Amino acid sequence: MDPTTRIAQALGAAVRGAEGAGCPPRLAAAVRHSVFPGGARIRPKLCLAVALAHGDDDPALSDAAAVAVELLHCASLVHDDLPCFDDAATRRGLPSVHAAYGERLAVLAGDALIVLAFQALGEAGSAHPQRLPALLSLMARGVGMPHGIAAGQAWECEPQVKVRDYQQAKTGALFAAATMCGALAAGADARPWRALGECLGEAYQVADDIRDVAADPVLIGKPVGRDIALGRPSAARERGLMGAVNDFERLVEAAVDAVPDCRGATHLRALVRSESERLVPAEMRAEMRAGSARAAV
Amino acid sequence: MDPTTRIAQALGAAVRGAEGAGCPPRLAAAVRHSVFPGGARIRPKLCLAVALAHGDDDPALSDAAAVAVELLHCASLVHDDLPCFDDAATRRGLPSVHAAYGERLAVLAGDALIVLAFQALGEAGSAHPQRLPALLSLMARGVGMPHGIAAGQAWECEPQVKVRDYQQAKTGALFAAATMCGALAAGADARPWRALGECLGEAYQVADDIRDVAADPVLIGKPVGRDIALGRPSAARERGLMGAVNDFERLVEAAVDAVPDCRGATHLRALVRSESERLVPAEMRAEMRAGSARAAV
Repeated sequence: MDPTTRIAQALGAAVRGAEGAGCPPRLAAAVRHSVFPGGARIRPKLCLAVALAHGDDDPALSDAAAVAVELLHCASLVHDDLPCFDDAATRRGLPSVHAAYGERLAVLAGDALIVLAFQALGEAGSAHPQRLPALLSLMARGVGMPHGIAAGQAWECEPQVKVRDYQQAKTGALFAAATMCGALAAGADARPWRALGECLGEAYQVADDIRDVAADPVLIGKPVGRDIALGRPSAARERGLMGAVNDFERLVEAAVDAVPDCRGATHLRALVRSESERLVPAEMRAEMRAGSARAAV
Repeated sequence: MDPTTRIAQALGAAVRGAEGAGCPPRLAAAVRHSVFPGGARIRPKLCLAVALAHGDDDPALSDAAAVAVELLHCASLVHDDLPCFDDAATRRGLPSVHAAYGERLAVLAGDALIVLAFQALGEAGSAHPQRLPALLSLMARGVGMPHGIAAGQAWECEPQVKVRDYQQAKTGALFAAATMCGALAAGADARPWRALGECLGEAYQVADDIRDVAADPVLIGKPVGRDIALGRPSAARERGLMGAVNDFERLVEAAVDAVPDCRGATHLRALVRSESERLVPAEMRAEMRAGSARAAV
């Protein structure tokens, strides 16, 4: 089964399990809306690719790690869109969860998704329970305190913040959890996979800043110009658009170089390159360079 | 070490770990405010008492189960106090988390506490990892979907709800997780402990309804009359104050009867009785009965 189908099926099974008989119907609908149709699913794809590179000897556990990473990502989007944060009315071209179901169900759907992520790991852990302590710990570090997503969002509430610390916590930490937990789920050492996740996560955040400044809201499915409107730390604001484009290209190359030598290395390097092209296409970067050169004349 | 000190130390260690170097300071402060000084800590006390009744052969894991239950409880309070839910300005006689730190940090503190609960379980699971799958699953069921706390709060967003389903999910589920996870942490069968948790949880929720109607806000540390003001399902509203008092007494007796025969049974039954007296003192119940009898004359 190809990884995209595998991830879709595993996410479907996890959400169906949570929706079981007796669940408040509007909460079930809000959770489903948070997870489907979904975006690029890059974090679970990375997680599975690393597990496959190490033999994927416990596919149920690899699936659970991929599902957990994606559910935690979805939870962070739902809470990040809330009126008290970004107040975003749309996400992935559809109404955001709070716009569709109200603020209370958006808070609860995010909470339920965090719980469901850890539940999925636990329930898939019976065959190799000795892998669970490190899996749980690394996954939690990707989203909690002091350096995970919650910490990253909390930097938005501080008077002073370094853009890099903010981006590392808000995006890099869960990407690192994705690659490292892929290795752990297959019984391998997680440490060689940290750098790939961190570089790619930072590249994603810089790409997001570039797109926030430069992209068409119809193309990216959510409002643009929000980071600057909200005064959030932004690479494109701090170093200028071309500085951010250069950072993006450097980070993508660093991610490619960070793929450890293993039997899935070629596939993983190709995945990094195709994702970077999807995020900030080479053509768009060339146009930005040309525009910047014209402005400098 | 007595259980109260043990719980305080274990909670302190968990929160200190999360606050580590590089944590956004206001998030760290909001999380600490959410957990300390804390309330009666009845859920972790129950959890530890059950683990001790089964020999407590892995104290670190018992402590982690108790910590997880309490952190999940604290998370639910922080989110329940948010402006979109109860909009409570005080909790345990102090400003609520959103009143002290703002709405964004209250959302994030709740999220971080949920993550920290599962992280604590994972990090204490190395000695007996085979206990983790069931522990994670049961703990998650206590707080997630379809029947845990998030589901319980979500019933407040539905047009129709049965008070008992609502109370079972909002309160009973985490009490059941507390007793059952205490057994699991000590390597014992969890099932005989479900009834105790469920009865006690229901008694707590009925007590809360009674106190919401009848108590002094200074005594209980939060505003009263909120359930009725907010149109929330309430036993005291549905069956009248005396009906709720009768329900409370019946549920406390059922909880005492539900303690399985074991070497800690006497202590556990005494704990149930002393907690019920703390919640709705016999003297207060007698006054309510007298008042009700006078009104009927």
